[in-house]
Amino acid sequence: MSIKVITVSREFGSGGRTIGRLVAERLGWSFYDREIVNAVAQKSGFAEKFIEENGEYANVNSSLLFNLSVGAGAENGVLSLYDEIFNAQSQIIRDAAEKGNCVIVGRCADFILSDRDDCLNVFIYSDTESRKKRIIEVYGENNKPIEKRIRDKDKRRKVYYKSFTGGKWGEMKNYHLAMDSGRIGLEKCADMIVEAVK
Amino acid sequence: MSIKVITVSREFGSGGRTIGRLVAERLGWSFYDREIVNAVAQKSGFAEKFIEENGEYANVNSSLLFNLSVGAGAENGVLSLYDEIFNAQSQIIRDAAEKGNCVIVGRCADFILSDRDDCLNVFIYSDTESRKKRIIEVYGENNKPIEKRIRDKDKRRKVYYKSFTGGKWGEMKNYHLAMDSGRIGLEKCADMIVEAVK
Repeated sequence: MSIKVITVSREFGSGGRTIGRLVAERLGWSFYDREIVNAVAQKSGFAEKFIEENGEYANVNSSLLFNLSVGAGAENGVLSLYDEIFNAQSQIIRDAAEKGNCVIVGRCADFILSDRDDCLNVFIYSDTESRKKRIIEVYGENNKPIEKRIRDKDKRRKVYYKSFTGGKWGEMKNYHLAMDSGRIGLEKCADMIVEAVK
Repeated sequence: MSIKVITVSREFGSGGRTIGRLVAERLGWSFYDREIVNAVAQKSGFAEKFIEENGEYANVNSSLLFNLSVGAGAENGVLSLYDEIFNAQSQIIRDAAEKGNCVIVGRCADFILSDRDDCLNVFIYSDTESRKKRIIEVYGENNKPIEKRIRDKDKRRKVYYKSFTGGKWGEMKNYHLAMDSGRIGLEKCADMIVEAVK
């Protein structure tokens, strides 16, 4: 097996993004995370903030009015804003994979690239205590209870994944490698992924 | 994290046992597979064949009469044969873990050792085509269609796991590491597990 592309899906607070960046650094590969947001913004003209929020997370808390306004066109064959972002993202992800030697974080890349046999799809998860600790360290406290932040963010990723892929986010068989970063540690997870590619 | 014990659960035909043996060889650790069957046989007086069949697989195809005969005592506080085997196995697995530096294949070891923080619980799975190929290579053909052999064996492991642990066999969060041996390859899977322990 020759791996040219690594996709990293992750639970909120599991350190998946950090692991992806470490792997890219160690392999000397390109790292796609914010880069995808920037490229979609340039391509589509939407603001980066809007793409970051709506290119990976379902807007489960937004008002019915907002959902109608962004989704109303779909039934008439007109693409919703979500669809436009998803399509632009998909194209950027496919182009990146075609160039090869890259690590891509989130954004349904495992599904978008499922026809390739040079991909290693990784899922990073962790126990709740480790996630809580990491979220406070990395993102700080805010006025929402930490358990609720975890639940909400995972749920929005799950709903987004389901609506664009039809599949179940976080189901083992969607990935080739699933790692508990709480037990294994971020550095070790990165070492093991590098070992897979070597 | 200091890992002293590796448990390997696996889909039928995924090569999980082989990966476990490779890891034990490379680390110079003890390998518990048939060894558990032998030890339970000595301890309990049951035949090895009987333990092999009933120490990891639910007897979903056996007659009601058989299930009654082995399970009838449970309601009266008398252990069934299954319980006796499970208890003897659990003790052997706990003793092995206490000695440390060992790889244990199957037999709900992940659950039995869930109170230890020096365990790495691994699950090995694979795509159906790779499993078919491996089953024919390793175990040969028999008069049962290969898909049915896969379905039956996984189902019996799943039912056994459920009845003794209450948990769901093959659910990501029961394990610290899950690997698709079809995509990654058996040798590479072993390399990566060794990397986790180093």
